[in-house]
Formats: sequence, structure tokens, C-alpha cells
Amino acid sequence: MSLDSYAAALIRYPELGFSLDSSLMDLDADFLASMEGKVARAYQDIAELEAGAIANPDEGRMVGHYWLRRPELAPTDEIRSQITEPLRDLKQFAEKVHTGQVTPPGGGIFERLLVIGIGGSALGPQLVNDAVGHGSRLAIHFLDNTDPDGIDRTLAEIGAERLTKTLVVVISKSGGTPETRNGMVEAKAAFDAAGLDFGKHAVAITGDGSKLDQFADKHGFITRFPMEDWVGGRTSVMSTVGLVPAALQGIDIDALLAGAAAMDERTRQAGGGGGDNAAMRLALCWYAAGNGRGEKDMVVLPYKDSLVLFSKYLQQLVMESLGKEKDLDGKVVNQGIAVYGNKGSTDQHAYVQQLRDGVPNFFATFIEVRKGRDGDTIEVEPGNTSADYLQGFLRGTRKALHESGRQSLTISIPKVGPKQLGALIALFERAVSFYASLVNINAYHQPGVEAGKKAAADFLETLNAVRSRLVADAKTAGDIAYEIDADPEEVYHCLNHLASNGEAQISLGASAADDTFSI
Amino acid sequence: MSLDSYAAALIRYPELGFSLDSSLMDLDADFLASMEGKVARAYQDIAELEAGAIANPDEGRMVGHYWLRRPELAPTDEIRSQITEPLRDLKQFAEKVHTGQVTPPGGGIFERLLVIGIGGSALGPQLVNDAVGHGSRLAIHFLDNTDPDGIDRTLAEIGAERLTKTLVVVISKSGGTPETRNGMVEAKAAFDAAGLDFGKHAVAITGDGSKLDQFADKHGFITRFPMEDWVGGRTSVMSTVGLVPAALQGIDIDALLAGAAAMDERTRQAGGGGGDNAAMRLALCWYAAGNGRGEKDMVVLPYKDSLVLFSKYLQQLVMESLGKEKDLDGKVVNQGIAVYGNKGSTDQHAYVQQLRDGVPNFFATFIEVRKGRDGDTIEVEPGNTSADYLQGFLRGTRKALHESGRQSLTISIPKVGPKQLGALIALFERAVSFYASLVNINAYHQPGVEAGKKAAADFLETLNAVRSRLVADAKTAGDIAYEIDADPEEVYHCLNHLASNGEAQISLGASAADDTFSI
Repeated sequence: MSLDSYAAALIRYPELGFSLDSSLMDLDADFLASMEGKVARAYQDIAELEAGAIANPDEGRMVGHYWLRRPELAPTDEIRSQITEPLRDLKQFAEKVHTGQVTPPGGGIFERLLVIGIGGSALGPQLVNDAVGHGSRLAIHFLDNTDPDGIDRTLAEIGAERLTKTLVVVISKSGGTPETRNGMVEAKAAFDAAGLDFGKHAVAITGDGSKLDQFADKHGFITRFPMEDWVGGRTSVMSTVGLVPAALQGIDIDALLAGAAAMDERTRQAGGGGGDNAAMRLALCWYAAGNGRGEKDMVVLPYKDSLVLFSKYLQQLVMESLGKEKDLDGKVVNQGIAVYGNKGSTDQHAYVQQLRDGVPNFFATFIEVRKGRDGDTIEVEPGNTSADYLQGFLRGTRKALHESGRQSLTISIPKVGPKQLGALIALFERAVSFYASLVNINAYHQPGVEAGKKAAADFLETLNAVRSRLVADAKTAGDIAYEIDADPEEVYHCLNHLASNGEAQISLGASAADDTFSI
Repeated sequence: MSLDSYAAALIRYPELGFSLDSSLMDLDADFLASMEGKVARAYQDIAELEAGAIANPDEGRMVGHYWLRRPELAPTDEIRSQITEPLRDLKQFAEKVHTGQVTPPGGGIFERLLVIGIGGSALGPQLVNDAVGHGSRLAIHFLDNTDPDGIDRTLAEIGAERLTKTLVVVISKSGGTPETRNGMVEAKAAFDAAGLDFGKHAVAITGDGSKLDQFADKHGFITRFPMEDWVGGRTSVMSTVGLVPAALQGIDIDALLAGAAAMDERTRQAGGGGGDNAAMRLALCWYAAGNGRGEKDMVVLPYKDSLVLFSKYLQQLVMESLGKEKDLDGKVVNQGIAVYGNKGSTDQHAYVQQLRDGVPNFFATFIEVRKGRDGDTIEVEPGNTSADYLQGFLRGTRKALHESGRQSLTISIPKVGPKQLGALIALFERAVSFYASLVNINAYHQPGVEAGKKAAADFLETLNAVRSRLVADAKTAGDIAYEIDADPEEVYHCLNHLASNGEAQISLGASAADDTFSI
């Protein structure tokens, strides 16, 4: 393509060193003209959202993550102070931890963090740590599941002796998320076993009056930070959820917020020509690629090791926000965009084979980081550096995909620092808001997760009923299902689980229906 | 569903504690009948492949990864010894490292590993380490990209002082993979800077006579292990590629091989009724779900932290093997299956919202690990453990997806040990072989990656030409493109890269076409 047509499709924000290249997305004038009404509606929607409308109607909530980096925009003084006061407090708290005013009960200073959370309460801190937290003040570990083996591994990595200098941050808005509750109970057991007072090592980030809030109160946690109901989990990284761990790590959270604010400023409303809004451009590209119905997967390829989790972060942000059964009018639409990816050029050796030759069911999003490394570089061969190669692979792959008719976006940033990370997150948050308006859905709820939670709770209930019916005599799943009036297959799974964890004996039959179980 | 129909759809291999549940994949008798011819052909194909046919016709190669765990099946004595001799040698080498017969030149014993490779030469060792390598003898680090910042991070994690006790394993069949070459050159520079003799810390795994083989010879590497051309990168984990790092870590590689051999034994040929072959069942489910054209993505959800990389491993194995433009008759088919996923229950909080409610463009593959943890467990609430919850979430999500019409497979294994890992890998390797036969493609080449490599090489050539044309006077990309007769957009990207890495000054114009560059 000519440099002029490339340049014409390029959106640049020099103050961020940012650019978005959509030249290979085949947006045409007819498509853009056809979208004008929807685009105007999307700008209207986000203006109302930022002004404090109930943008999440199903849950009757405001949607306030954009205020977090510009509290002046918050619709009320109360909300404004819900941002500024915790921000002040968490900075002071981090300062006290760093300077030894808040210390472990056994003396010394806190040297590591154990963050316990899941979903938005883990991915945000994990992304920030992985992208900009290397070499930070405190080493960081995560419990983000209810896998006992995984919990054991993480606690073993810390080591019992280092628990004495470990600060635990427990993150759960309601305090009712079982994975987080379980992780906390398991961690507390490890502290107990080491003769340590868990509460004196722990901080909670939670809603006021939640179960976790009560637990923290009862166990004398060091301090608590609030989570507000107008911040959704997947957009909470710039609230206390992301900022408390980041500040404790010594990451420049002001730069993170400033980067997001600068991107917000650029993408809040249509510019003069309407064509310089990178978030709207992204949303339009997603729409065009997938016909507004998610017909193409979004493959995210940052060419930088430190952004490998950004793909996973977007997977949550995009899929949980956009993957909805019904639109705002109640019509069944089964929306969404599937997102996957790790990093380039590594993924070139994993699945670019399919991207170039195989099912054309995706568009790629390259993320280019212009600077290779801090400090001097060596040459890996006369005249060339590792960074030259990384750049070459990105450009080469983009071109090779284009040659075989696969579309791609390319986002460029100068380096991966807190400011750039904040800007990237803000860009995609707003693109998601815009896209949701374009396809007329609520991006801020997650009604589809309830069924699985309910079914899991039912399973546990059945499991406990099954436990009570195990005896020395062998029974089949059908026998016990009849006794407790439960689904035989579910009972079978319960019995297998018990047999595998030392609570039952199994004797295999000809088929699963014939297996027998006893104590 | 009734227990009988569940049981009827269940394939179990008691000696492995393995089962495959395809009851929620809606395979019907008509479909199975319609596939009979293709299935027979697939069994024929793999029999020929295992007997030493040129199963990779484009590259004129045999496909021998199934022989690695049962050398008796290898078609010639020469190939048999290409398996057994390196296996013997690498075990002896690991033993010598562990017992201090092979030591760092500065004394002491080797305490950590730095593995340098990409694609199949990294993902296999990464998977094995993450799944079964925790708490192993040697800590392990990876360089799997040409990102200088990422290389710096990994080398900083090791630390200059610990390089003295670091053993480097460089893995590249041809030695010509730039990412691996660059990683090795960067690592060598770090050893040089620390006053250490790189060769005395290094082992190569490479083809006989390759560039890496020559480099290893020249620099006096400790030893070298062979890579054979009948082992593809994405199926190399049970060759020297996976086994050398694993043996050095102290992982039971015999169990890994035995698990794979046992799964091979079960899935090599159709059983009596033809319905008890788990690999064929998987392949048929993939075919049914995506109409033999990859219309559905494969979402892989292991409910176990230690299997989080298995999804990524399958992403490579499946997509690079099946993502092909042409079938074996030369017809354009654009085959493939997109694969993504991380782990449950964590991913429930990321994108199960979309899976249940959103675009129905996938089928799920649950991997259940029956045992919660080694040793005693605590209760996280009266009567229930973390493992009960993990099990509940898997079963609940499977049910919730089924209720909304989303198909799923469930694979169960007793725990994550080397034997089970070997069996899982073997299962999917053979399912990929079968599926490739069902859709009539070559699963063992990767012609689509060449275009990107070529374009990257062209980019580097242009970059170096651009470098030579930079002067004190400001020029646009168009100016330089004219001088060197190159594509102006490509020149623009080169100039931006140079400006971002201290080799040029940029002055922004009104559009990218107007930007000027100078030394």
C-alpha cells in the first residue's frame, strides 16, 4: 500500500507516542456511512454513562471506571470522594509499608505480597505486575483459583519462613466469591500453622459491610480499602483493586492513571473529522470484521514479552463485556467476540501457520512496542540487534497475513511503562463501551455466570448428601441417587470425586453405571 | 441425562485412571455411520505412518514421534538406535550433573537451567516444567523470543552471580531459527560479561552438522544431543528436546514415556466395537462440532493450575498441525481449529459469560483432575474442601453450558504426574493425526510460516539499507524509499524503529507521510 493511504488510515496521539493503524482492515466509505447513526448513538451513550446514567440497567448501577482517572468528572461529590480518599489512603499505606511504619508483627519489613482474588480481582494486578512490576519493591504471588494443589504450590514457593514478611491482600467485592474465600482460608491455615497471626499480615479490598469486611474486622486486619458498586470487576484495575497492589509494589500509579486519562481525553468524543478517535475506530473495525455479530475471533499479538498477559486481560474485558445473550431490547442476539493470543514472535512458531493458511475466522491485533530495551544493546550479527529481528517479525507477519487476505490492526506504543499501559487499557475499555452501543447490548453485567454458580452449589449439596449415604456395603451411583432423589449421573461424579480423595472406595464395573462405592 | 447414556458414551482406560466423556457432544448414529469410510482410512494412514511411510510428503519425511515411547516399533535399526542411544546418553548426562561429575567451571554444582528455544523447542519443556516440574532439582528459566527487554528480564531474574551455576540448553533443529540464535548470542554476552566461559555452561540439542552444531563445536559446549528430522517441533516433547531438560530437572521421564506408550497402545487401532478409541472419538467429536471445517473453536479448560499451559500446548499442536490451506489432493480447503483457554475455575470469571450466553462458535474441552492435593486437606467450611469446590465448578459449568446448548467433552485423569501428562499428550497427538486423515490434510508440515519469515528477512534488508541512507539532513520516508527503491510504507516503519532505538531523530509532520528523519 502507498504511504499516503497508510498515513490516511493512521490515528496518532503524539503526546502518548501512540498510533493505531487500521489500513489493513478494509473499512470502506460505504460501511462508515452506514454506521453513522449507530456511531452518534454510541457517543451519546458514553456521554450519558460518564455523566452518571444508570448505564447498567439490569443491575441498576452507574458505570464509573472512567471517573477513576479523572475524579472531577464524577457526577457527585460523594462519588468523587470515593475515588480521591481511597487513592490518598492507599498511597499513604504503601508509603508506610515501604518506610517500615507498617511492619510484620515479627519485625523487619514486608518483603512480599500474596494477592488473593479471581477474575477482575486478579487479572488486573497480574497484568500490571507482569507488564511493569519486574524488579519492584515487593515480590508478588497470586492465589486465583480454588485448586488445592495450586494453592500448595504457591505457598511452597513463598515458603513458610518467608510468610513472616508476607503481606496478604484479599480482594472480593462481595466477599462471597468462593474461590477467593477458599484461598483466604487456605492461606490463613498456612499462617496459623507457621504460628503467625493472619490478620496482622492482611489487608482487605472489599465492599463496605461485605462478608469479607466482617471477616477482616473480626480477625483484626491491618486495614481495609473500599470497592464501590459502580466499578465492575473487569474494569477495576484503576480502582483500589489494581492500585493497592501496584502502589505496594512501588509502581508509579499516578503515571498509570495519567496515561488512561490522556487516552480518555482523546477518545471521549468524536474529533472534528470524527476519524481520529482510536477507540471508535477499533470498535468499528471489530464491527466490520465480524459483521457486528462476532463472526471473527480477535487474535491479540503483542510483540513484547512484558505484554503477554495483555491478551488474556483483553480476553476477559472483551468476552465478559460483549458476550451477551440478549440486546437491550430483550432480543436474543448471542453477541460476543472470542479473544485469544499470547505474544509475538513466539506465537509465530505456534499457530501463525493456521492464521495464514487455515480457517479465515479471525482478525489480528498487533501491538508494537517501539523501543527494544533500556540501555545499550549488543548486535546479534553484524549490524543487527534482537530488536531489529522482533520488529522484522512483526512487520513480516503482518504483511504475510495481509497477502493471504487476513485483516489486521496494528497498535504502536513507544515502550511498556505505567503510562502506556494505562493508555492501552483505557483504549480498549472505551472501544468495548462503543462496540456495546453499536450492537445495542449492556456491556456491564454478566448474567450468564449465575447458572454455573448455581449448578456448582447444587453439586456441592448433592456431594454432601452422597457423603452421608456412603457405607461399608458397596452401592452403585443409581442406588444412592434413588436414596437421596438426585440425578444418577451427578451422584456418579460425586462418588468418583470422593473415591479420588480418600473418602470412598471404588470398584469398577463393566460400565460406569455398574461401578460400586463404599466407605 | 441418564447414567446409562452417560456410561455408554464413556471411554475408560482403568490402567491409566483415564476417561473420556463425549456424552454432551451429540454424536449420533447417522453421523458415525457416515464417517465409517474416513475412519477406516485414518486407521490405515496411521498404521502406515507408524510403519515408516513418508507421512509428510511435502517434506519427504517420516513422522516418528510415536516411536519415541516405543522404539521397538521404529521401522529400522538405525532409527531405533537414534531413539535409544540419546535416551541412554541423556539419562547418564543428567545423572552426572546431579552427582557433580559434570560441574560448572567455577566449582560447585549446576543449580539452574536456562533453556533457549522457541515453538516446539520451548512449549514442550515449559509444559513439562509447569505441570510436573515444581520443586524439581534445578530451577528453570526460558528464553523463547527475540525481545531484548524480555531477555534482559530473564537474565536479571537469574542474576549475574547465579550464572556461575547455570547450565544452558540451546534447542534448535537447524540452528537457523533467529529467535533462538539471538537468545543464545544474548545469553553468551551475559556470560562473557560475567567473565564466564559460555561453552563450558552449554549443551546443544540440534541436528547433526547444523549451524548450532558447528557453533557448539567451536565454543566447546559440554555436550550435544541429536534432533532427528523425523520428529517435528510440535511433537518433540518426548525426544531429546523435552527429555533433556526434564531429566536434568529430575523428572521421571520413564513415567512420561510409559504414560504415552500406554495411551498409544489403547488408541493405535480400533478396538472390537470401534467405539473405545479415545483419540478417534476426540477426532470425530471435533469433526462433528465443526462440520469437518473448523467452524467451532476448541476451548480448553483444565481445572488444575498445573495444567494451565496444556491449553497453550494444544493451541500449537492442533493449530499448526491442522491449519492448512490445501488438502492432500492440492485443493484449497483452509482447514484448522482455533484453540484457546487457560484454566478453570479461573476462566469462569473471565469469559464463561460469553461461552454460556454469547456467540455459539465453540465447543469446550474440560480436563478434570480427580485428586485435589497430596497429603491432608483442610476444610474451607464445615464439611467441604477447596477440591470439592473445584469439582463443583467444573460440573456446574459443564451443566450450565449444556443447558444453553453448548457442547463439551470431559477428560478425566487421576492426578497430574509424568505418566498422566504423557498419556494426555499422546492422546491429543493421535487425535490430531486421525483428524488430519478425516479431513485429508498433511498434519506434519508448516508451509504457511515461510512467507512471514521471508517478509521479515526482507524487512531487515530494507532496514539496513535505510540505516545507510540516514544523514544529518531531514528526509521523509518517501525520499529514502526513492533512493533505495523500496516500499515507502516499509521504509517508514524502518525509520520509526530506528528513531525509537536511538539511531535516528524524528520530526512529526501533519501525517506520517510528512514525518522527517535524520541522524
